[in-house]
Amino acid sequence: MTIPETMLAVAHAGGGPLRLETIPTPKPGPDEVLIKVAYAGLNRADLVQRAGFYPPPAGAPQTMGLEVSGEVVAVGAEASRWSVGAQVCALLAGGGYAQYAAVHEGSVLPVPKGYDLERAAALPEAIITVFANVFETCGLQPGEAFLVHGGASGIGTTAIQMAKAQGATVFATAGDADKVALCGRLGAARAINYKTEDFEEIVREAGGVDVILDMVGGTYVQKNINILKERGRLVHIAFLQGSRVEVDLMRMMIKRATITGTTLRARANAEKAQLCARVLEKVWPWVEIGRVAPVIDRVFAFDEADAAHARMQSGAHAGKILLRVA
Amino acid sequence: MTIPETMLAVAHAGGGPLRLETIPTPKPGPDEVLIKVAYAGLNRADLVQRAGFYPPPAGAPQTMGLEVSGEVVAVGAEASRWSVGAQVCALLAGGGYAQYAAVHEGSVLPVPKGYDLERAAALPEAIITVFANVFETCGLQPGEAFLVHGGASGIGTTAIQMAKAQGATVFATAGDADKVALCGRLGAARAINYKTEDFEEIVREAGGVDVILDMVGGTYVQKNINILKERGRLVHIAFLQGSRVEVDLMRMMIKRATITGTTLRARANAEKAQLCARVLEKVWPWVEIGRVAPVIDRVFAFDEADAAHARMQSGAHAGKILLRVA
Repeated sequence: MTIPETMLAVAHAGGGPLRLETIPTPKPGPDEVLIKVAYAGLNRADLVQRAGFYPPPAGAPQTMGLEVSGEVVAVGAEASRWSVGAQVCALLAGGGYAQYAAVHEGSVLPVPKGYDLERAAALPEAIITVFANVFETCGLQPGEAFLVHGGASGIGTTAIQMAKAQGATVFATAGDADKVALCGRLGAARAINYKTEDFEEIVREAGGVDVILDMVGGTYVQKNINILKERGRLVHIAFLQGSRVEVDLMRMMIKRATITGTTLRARANAEKAQLCARVLEKVWPWVEIGRVAPVIDRVFAFDEADAAHARMQSGAHAGKILLRVA
Repeated sequence: MTIPETMLAVAHAGGGPLRLETIPTPKPGPDEVLIKVAYAGLNRADLVQRAGFYPPPAGAPQTMGLEVSGEVVAVGAEASRWSVGAQVCALLAGGGYAQYAAVHEGSVLPVPKGYDLERAAALPEAIITVFANVFETCGLQPGEAFLVHGGASGIGTTAIQMAKAQGATVFATAGDADKVALCGRLGAARAINYKTEDFEEIVREAGGVDVILDMVGGTYVQKNINILKERGRLVHIAFLQGSRVEVDLMRMMIKRATITGTTLRARANAEKAQLCARVLEKVWPWVEIGRVAPVIDRVFAFDEADAAHARMQSGAHAGKILLRVA
C-alpha cells in the first residue's frame, strides 16, 4: 500500500469549530507501527485538550485523539509484534483524529475475535483505564463492592461490566432514568440516579464499598470517603466538579483508606506495553465472550467532529462516541 | 509468683490530675499473657484519650498506655509462644499505665539482645507504627527518598533510623536547633527547622521524596502532595494541625500519588500478630546491632504521670518519654 505524504486530520488549535486540515502523514519510529485509521474514539480529555488545558506529552502529536482502530500499514525497523495488514486497535498519546496514526507497538491490541473495526475502536482507552485503576491500582477482588460514578459514560459502562466479570458487586451513578436502566442492564446491582437520589445514603445503607472509581471530584470526594469500607480505595481519573476540595481526612485514616489518582497518557511506552499485555491476558477473553462489550452511543463522520464534541459536552450520550475516519 | 488481686494503675477518667488508683488485676484470656509491667511508654494518643477523643476499642482496658516492657508472669491456656519469666515488650490496645497488663501473645516481642527493660519499653509502638506505615503501606524501597515530620518525636527518631537502615535518603523536620541536630545524628541527610525554613522549598529543590510519614495534617497536606515524586506515597498517622483540609487533588492525580492513613490500635489481634512477626524478622536485627536504637527523652516515676504528660504536651521532649512502673 502506498502511504501518502499528507493526510487529513482534525485541527483544533486557535479555537473556533473543528475542521479537517491537511498535515504531513506521520512516519513510524523504529519501535512504532503506522495505523491507517478506520475509527477514532472520543474521550472527555479531548475536550479538555481542545480547551487548552491538557497539552499532549512531549513527542506526541498536537492532533487530538487517544484511541483508534484500523489496519497496520507500515512497521518500524525494530518493531516485531505486528505485521502489515494486521487489524488492530490502539491507545495513543494523541493524534487519533487523523487518517494515519503512528504508535509504539506495545500500545497496540488485536481486534478481538468477532469484532469489527467500529466496535474495536470503542475499547482501548476505557478498558485500559479501568484495568489500570480499578484492577491494578485498587486491586478489586472478587466479592468486593465497587462504585463507579458516571456509570453511563464510556468509562462507566466498561467499569460496570469489568467489575461484574471480576465477581464484584457493582454500584453506579448516572443522571437520568435511561442511563440508570442501562447501568442495571450492564450488571450494576444498584444504579443510582444522582439527581433524585443520595448516593452516599444508598451506598452507606448497603454497607459501603471497597473501591470507588471517580471522575467527578468536588463535593463527591468527602462523600466517597464516607462510604468506603475499612481499607477502601478511592481512585480519581478526572475532576469534572473540580480538584480543589475541602475534606476531612480523619475518616480516611480511621478506616485505613487510600485516596489516589492516575493518568494514562503520560506513562512511558514500556509501562503501557506491560499494561496492554496484561489487558490482553485478563480482559480480552471477557471481550471475546461478550461479558465486556462496548456500548456505542453514536458514530459521527470524520468531518462531523464538531458535532461529536458537542454531543459529548452536552452529557446526553451514553457509552462511546466515535468518528468514522475511513 | 503470686499475682495480687488488685494493682495500681493511672486513673484519668473525670478530668483533673492523673493519680494512681487501685483496680482489679487483669486476668489473661486463653490466648493472652499477663505481663508484670516494668516500664510503660507514653504516646501522643494517650493525651488524646485523656481528653476524651480516643476511646479504647471494644474489650480494651480503660486505663491509658499502648506499650510496656516487663516479665511474663502468667500464660493463658491456649497461649504457647511465651513462658513465665520471659522478658518482653508489647504493643497494647490500652492498659499500659498499670502494674500488670494482659495482652494477646501475638502482640508481644522479646527484649532484644543487649537491651534492658527500660530501653525495650521505648520500642514497640514506634517501631511497629513506622514498619506498618512506611515499610508496608508505603513500601519504602532502598534508594528512595523519605521525609518524616516531627523528626525528633518517638516516631520520628525511629522513622529516621529505620528508613536509613532500609537504604533510603532521609529528610526530617523538627522545631528547634537541638532537635534538628538530633535528626542529623540519627541519619537524616537533611534535617529542616520548620520554624525558620520552608520544608516544601528545600525538599522540592532536592528533587522531592517518594514517601512521607506525616502526623501534622492541616496546611502540611498540600505541601506534602506538592513535593511527592511521581508515584509518591503520603501516609498520615495523626493530624495535630487538624484533619479538615483544603487540598487540590489534581497534582496527586497527575503524579499518580497516593494519600492514605492508618491506625494501629484497633487492628485485629491476628493482624497485629503478623505485623509483630514481620517486625521481629526485619527490624529486630537492626535493633540488636544498634542501627535502630531508641532515643529516650526522660523516665518519670509511676506517680509522676501528670508531669510526664505535661512534658509531652509541651513538645519540649525529644524521643520517648517513659513511666517507671516497677
